[in-house]
Amino acid sequence: MDIIEKLTEIFKEFPGIGERQAKRFVYFLMHKNPIYAENLCNLISDLKKEVTQCKECFRFFIKNKKLVSTTCEICANVNTDSSILMIVEKDSDLESIKKSRVYHGKYFILGGLVPIVEKTTKSRVRISELQEKIKREKELKEIILAFSISPQGDHTDQYVREQLKDLCEKQKIKISSLGKGLSTGTELEYSDNDTLKNALKNRQ
Amino acid sequence: MDIIEKLTEIFKEFPGIGERQAKRFVYFLMHKNPIYAENLCNLISDLKKEVTQCKECFRFFIKNKKLVSTTCEICANVNTDSSILMIVEKDSDLESIKKSRVYHGKYFILGGLVPIVEKTTKSRVRISELQEKIKREKELKEIILAFSISPQGDHTDQYVREQLKDLCEKQKIKISSLGKGLSTGTELEYSDNDTLKNALKNRQ
Amino acid sequence: MDIIEKLTEIFKEFPGIGERQAKRFVYFLMHKNPIYAENLCNLISDLKKEVTQCKECFRFFIKNKKLVSTTCEICANVNTDSSILMIVEKDSDLESIKKSRVYHGKYFILGGLVPIVEKTTKSRVRISELQEKIKREKELKEIILAFSISPQGDHTDQYVREQLKDLCEKQKIKISSLGKGLSTGTELEYSDNDTLKNALKNRQ
Amino acid sequence: MDIIEKLTEIFKEFPGIGERQAKRFVYFLMHKNPIYAENLCNLISDLKKEVTQCKECFRFFIKNKKLVSTTCEICANVNTDSSILMIVEKDSDLESIKKSRVYHGKYFILGGLVPIVEKTTKSRVRISELQEKIKREKELKEIILAFSISPQGDHTDQYVREQLKDLCEKQKIKISSLGKGLSTGTELEYSDNDTLKNALKNRQ
Repeated sequence: MDIIEKLTEIFKEFPGIGERQAKRFVYFLMHKNPIYAENLCNLISDLKKEVTQCKECFRFFIKNKKLVSTTCEICANVNTDSSILMIVEKDSDLESIKKSRVYHGKYFILGGLVPIVEKTTKSRVRISELQEKIKREKELKEIILAFSISPQGDHTDQYVREQLKDLCEKQKIKISSLGKGLSTGTELEYSDNDTLKNALKNRQ
Repeated sequence: MDIIEKLTEIFKEFPGIGERQAKRFVYFLMHKNPIYAENLCNLISDLKKEVTQCKECFRFFIKNKKLVSTTCEICANVNTDSSILMIVEKDSDLESIKKSRVYHGKYFILGGLVPIVEKTTKSRVRISELQEKIKREKELKEIILAFSISPQGDHTDQYVREQLKDLCEKQKIKISSLGKGLSTGTELEYSDNDTLKNALKNRQ
Repeated sequence: MDIIEKLTEIFKEFPGIGERQAKRFVYFLMHKNPIYAENLCNLISDLKKEVTQCKECFRFFIKNKKLVSTTCEICANVNTDSSILMIVEKDSDLESIKKSRVYHGKYFILGGLVPIVEKTTKSRVRISELQEKIKREKELKEIILAFSISPQGDHTDQYVREQLKDLCEKQKIKISSLGKGLSTGTELEYSDNDTLKNALKNRQ
Repeated sequence: MDIIEKLTEIFKEFPGIGERQAKRFVYFLMHKNPIYAENLCNLISDLKKEVTQCKECFRFFIKNKKLVSTTCEICANVNTDSSILMIVEKDSDLESIKKSRVYHGKYFILGGLVPIVEKTTKSRVRISELQEKIKREKELKEIILAFSISPQGDHTDQYVREQLKDLCEKQKIKISSLGKGLSTGTELEYSDNDTLKNALKNRQ
């Protein structure tokens, strides 16, 4: 394998990138001046150096150069509402909700969804880390499960509820899930039965 | 204009059909045996003869050959729950909800959405017919507004609420709207702010 | 099956129309005034009455009300170049070439492509009708095979060449096929090997 | 701008990559282990170090570590047919043709297409470099212009022909262009006039 093929293989691992586009990336880099390539590499190295995983929510965040901190700016911020904790699948879900400015509580990144047919679930998602975190959070009043609406998302919702049930009863923490119903752009004519059922049940 | 062009023009009015496909329909009919064409025309004539509009919900329905009835089988059915009335935009919305078997009350077809910038709204949607119907419905306890989630759908929701406000207060009828939130297939990462906001507000 | 379901089934046979759109057509017709439906049906009946198949080229054409003719206006036109005959798969191919105004000879509609694995080919395409036509055409100098570039199109090209070989040798008629190469919009970067090979072979 | 935003900006310059996917790349890199990132950066640096531009055809190629060469392996190969020279727009066109194994002559990369409305063309494409190369190529018998079929591609074809006319007449070099006609997958029904015209003209 020559350098072009090797780099194509690496780019093929990028999300949503196939063979053809991976190769286009390589040719693109060939044509770009060396400064662009150097800049890209420096930024990638910096990313790996400057970014670390929050010990509290497991989110990736940029280290503050002045402060040595093991927690991200959301977990560290005293203004963050410590009474609610939203459990999401992955970093990009957190970023999307954060950007929407509709939620001001804490987060926890589960690190994946729980496959419906799987025995060794614990090894895949951070359920014991979540349980430990809940034990530490004395002010916590509500846990919001925020998973995508899909068979796997629903299964993860049920799984997490079960795993947290005893702990939450003991600590008097309510568990809720994001509301289901019609979302922006939904047309009644083309809605599936589950969505109609939820929309009707959750009417207000 | 020859017959091919004339028929192409007619088919271009069909929902979702452009020039090219309209012409393909004409060639398709040319190639089909005359019995198919005759059958198609007979069914279209029958449709116009056998179908009538319900005097109660304004839905199109197939006339019962034995009974002379001015109301559809939903409105005529004594098992239909008369305490709830769902207001929908169009026939296909009603059919979709009916097919989902999640709702067993009555319906009313408004006949369209209310454009955001428009003065002469009343002439476009059946608001006075709806008011008259509500006055007749003595058992009615709740009106469910079921419009698509879009600026026009939201505007129609508000408009209908205003128009029915006094009447519903007088008759002690509750007005609700279908629940908003995450719908099947929604991924948190790609959700818009409104959907996230509704999902959070309507969590349970 | 009620009238709505029956008509949906009929519309599902239309080219490119699935269950959902077929049903939308039925609802569309329900809402349209009776005059539109009547007009549609009259035009469909007229189409079947006014259109006939040309005895020469097997194309469908609109009968001239004054003249009783068994041949279409292309075959009947004395200005049509009788020295060239283009063999196409179907009516819409002929219409597309006619519209482009790049060809002024005669046509013959084969009525389909020859599947690669099939024994009883003759029953599917008009090969004997084509042979008979060629025998009648005394001025014919060239036959142009004009099939789509696909495995089936190529196979049909070969099949027709074989079937016409002896006859064309005897009548001194040349057989050619449409040129292969780069077509409008082709990008070299994304071209397949066959297209590049043909483009190189047919360079000029 | 933080490191995530900076890197997103860099990835947005990658061909075909928008804001959303650029950000997904950054998160992807965050999650990947540091070895992957290091490997990627090393390969990018190597690419810029190991790749050089051929002095003859202006193609980018991987330098042979043992031999110090200023020409690529196609130009340096004695088995390459020196009597034909194919002019292409860009590296990826050359790679596509090379991969198809239908051409075994030399190449020249023009470095772009000539915009239809532009005065200062010479500065954009390597026309003087091409002229110099032709003067050096004593065995050259034919130049093949291989540009995409588009208004700009056609204009470039004409422009290059003009610029090479005198030189080629003097050196008795033939200029040809890739053949135009039906390409793989072309359906006659949906073909444009130019393609039909070329297909008819180039029939054989």
